[in-house]
Amino acid sequence: MKKMTYQLPKFTREEVLEMDRKYNVHSWSAQNALKNIIPVEKSEGIYFWDYNGKRYADMCSQLVNMNLGHGNQQIIDAIKQQAEDLCFIAPGQAVGIRAALAKKIIEHAPEGMTRVFFTNGGADSNENAIKMARQASGKQKVLSMYRSYHGATITAGNVSGDSRRFAAEIGGSAPGVVHFFGPFPYREEIEFESEEALTEFYLKMLRKQIIAEGHNNIAAIILETVIGANGVILPPKGYLAGIRALCDEYDIFMICDEVMAGFGRTGTWFAVDNWNVSPDMITFAKGVNSGYVQLGGVIMNEKVASHFDDNALQCGLTYQGHPLACASAYASIEYFEQNNVLDNVQKVGKVLGECLEELAKKHACVGEVRYIGLFSAIDLVKNKETKEPIAEYAIDTTGNQKKVVAKCKELGFYTYGRDNCIQICPPLIITEEELREQMKVLDEVLTWADNEFCK
Amino acid sequence: MKKMTYQLPKFTREEVLEMDRKYNVHSWSAQNALKNIIPVEKSEGIYFWDYNGKRYADMCSQLVNMNLGHGNQQIIDAIKQQAEDLCFIAPGQAVGIRAALAKKIIEHAPEGMTRVFFTNGGADSNENAIKMARQASGKQKVLSMYRSYHGATITAGNVSGDSRRFAAEIGGSAPGVVHFFGPFPYREEIEFESEEALTEFYLKMLRKQIIAEGHNNIAAIILETVIGANGVILPPKGYLAGIRALCDEYDIFMICDEVMAGFGRTGTWFAVDNWNVSPDMITFAKGVNSGYVQLGGVIMNEKVASHFDDNALQCGLTYQGHPLACASAYASIEYFEQNNVLDNVQKVGKVLGECLEELAKKHACVGEVRYIGLFSAIDLVKNKETKEPIAEYAIDTTGNQKKVVAKCKELGFYTYGRDNCIQICPPLIITEEELREQMKVLDEVLTWADNEFCK
Repeated sequence: MKKMTYQLPKFTREEVLEMDRKYNVHSWSAQNALKNIIPVEKSEGIYFWDYNGKRYADMCSQLVNMNLGHGNQQIIDAIKQQAEDLCFIAPGQAVGIRAALAKKIIEHAPEGMTRVFFTNGGADSNENAIKMARQASGKQKVLSMYRSYHGATITAGNVSGDSRRFAAEIGGSAPGVVHFFGPFPYREEIEFESEEALTEFYLKMLRKQIIAEGHNNIAAIILETVIGANGVILPPKGYLAGIRALCDEYDIFMICDEVMAGFGRTGTWFAVDNWNVSPDMITFAKGVNSGYVQLGGVIMNEKVASHFDDNALQCGLTYQGHPLACASAYASIEYFEQNNVLDNVQKVGKVLGECLEELAKKHACVGEVRYIGLFSAIDLVKNKETKEPIAEYAIDTTGNQKKVVAKCKELGFYTYGRDNCIQICPPLIITEEELREQMKVLDEVLTWADNEFCK
Repeated sequence: MKKMTYQLPKFTREEVLEMDRKYNVHSWSAQNALKNIIPVEKSEGIYFWDYNGKRYADMCSQLVNMNLGHGNQQIIDAIKQQAEDLCFIAPGQAVGIRAALAKKIIEHAPEGMTRVFFTNGGADSNENAIKMARQASGKQKVLSMYRSYHGATITAGNVSGDSRRFAAEIGGSAPGVVHFFGPFPYREEIEFESEEALTEFYLKMLRKQIIAEGHNNIAAIILETVIGANGVILPPKGYLAGIRALCDEYDIFMICDEVMAGFGRTGTWFAVDNWNVSPDMITFAKGVNSGYVQLGGVIMNEKVASHFDDNALQCGLTYQGHPLACASAYASIEYFEQNNVLDNVQKVGKVLGECLEELAKKHACVGEVRYIGLFSAIDLVKNKETKEPIAEYAIDTTGNQKKVVAKCKELGFYTYGRDNCIQICPPLIITEEELREQMKVLDEVLTWADNEFCK
């Protein structure tokens, strides 16, 4: 090891807060509304601490990205080695760790997927997947779901279904973007006699919309394998396979956004593995390396990849396949392999499901709990019978969900929410004991919420 | 220091090339056309080496991003420290290094600029700047220049002026994007009696276009302070100030894209400093930390920032203000400060200018050399009189420029080009001696090019 000569400065709590307030602009917020921002001093495992020594259990893995939690020494070691070895080289060159990471990802990807195009994050991944689909198909339209999220760059934002889309639509909606409704079993407008009937209805509706949009004009259908930020909504039985069949029938690329759901979050390498479906492209980011360095990408099958053997891929970014990011992801995936992380997700995920079901039974404010692996959300309601949400979808002005999140935070249970749902998505390395301890805190929060919202 | 236990694997040249070919998809290329890809083994200072020990002088700083060159130990130390300390925390929290970096950037930014929103790269920065301009103005249109580049996400791609835009336009042009022609003194369609007359003409044309587009509908004008990838084209005297005045007159945000030109490339912290202009937003990436970790951002003045004090900023990305990236940038900026890097750029940049002018005099194939600081390009022609380019802008099919680049590479002079121009943009730490050595190689290449193209 070389001797360290340069030292980064240290700051006090007050300096951090003052500089942050004065010079930083925070996302998704009015800056004057940022009152209780946490100045973070350190982090380890599933926890982080503020400068006053208060501990927070990170029950949402930050933004559902720190799948291996904080301070994973194996990833840190890889970053340090790669930093010394070769921190950056442009995408045009060949680099061992970049190539080896692509190989490793393909080894764990669904059958038929063969190559990887790396990006810097989730939005990038979806922008590039859409560009590839349009280039490879020569068609323009992209169908995506309401109640979805695909990122905040302008086209990824337009493709998204939730209200974060509106800001991306100022100046006009992105051309060729068409939204469709997908299944949301808990909140359907009519009652279906079975899960199969619900799936069949939505697939029939989607087929109708494909025809109505011009089936020859559709480059891709993009959807989150499991809807993430909008409340962890699982595809009903047969739905993904039905989409795959529609895409095959009409020669449309199927893009599964697994930015949140991929890399072990659902207990399998990729969420599609739970339903044995192989899309044409999978977009990823977050869990690929727990966000230790920015990384995203597009995994593709030969139908997509082979188009670019003889046609120039018109996609690129300076930091594509960043060696430092690739090294951190390589180490992360090896950590998964060596430590049976997927087994832990399945084991502790089962406990999470049981705990959530108990909380659902006990609390008036819990309309539904939805979960798979360590990916879950609580649908909060004022009334279990009417299912009236504590905050209205996309147009809430009560801030009720923010109050629940604030209560969680007060008790050291760190998470975030959207509309009337809150996420429970701890790092995949959480132990059963750690989980049960936090579920008790959640129980306390929900008791408070029962009183607050269900009078 | 903790003991390292995890070790990243090492690969042979053959393994790297084979895995790369099989699993990676390279940007901006037909994969079958990638014949002479360089497998990079190591890098240091202004050089990198392939596995056969061949040395390349990095005369384009990879993608004009490695401003401090390869293997800068100060940046590496910062990355290693931050990796151990706090690798990642979500944008919602306050972190010392993120806040301190914003402060440091503002200290070097043009007068009047007060706050920073961080992103992961240049395209991101421009996407977010455009979103901010639209949100803060309530207006939709964005005016940008032909012969410009602002990134490859779909809207940034649409805003770009060069032929990389076409792929981003499949499915329809992005709404609200309008292009205008800017000055390119070497290749004007008519002759102007002076630089002032040329500037006046383009400002009058732009004013006319602003009126014709509806001056009340224009959120922003975005331009590269110095046009980069499209051949290092400097704004003529008075042009930037004229744009600033037009923006003030019509209440339009002025966004200067300094992804390539910022952080010392032109011999000043920001390129606008050369013309004493303060835009409303500066977008940056690349040089901020030499790309050691992905980082970009938007620097803004209070006219922009204050809008988001009470109105929610509808922008966000998971890795916004990534601590590891911020640490590397903090160390990089301190390196600039401590080692008088800007002085070196001015000193060696002067030599570069002199050498380029000599080459222009000597070689039939050199139509014009354009340079500022260590930012330069050679405009290659078949004929000095007619200025006929060796490759036609945007529609070249000869591949002539690629041949020049290949010749450079053969001789260990690494750079890239676009259309008929090649970039000469070495790391800012290059010494006069190193530069002169490489200029001799360039001389040799241009002699070859004289014979090849100017018969």
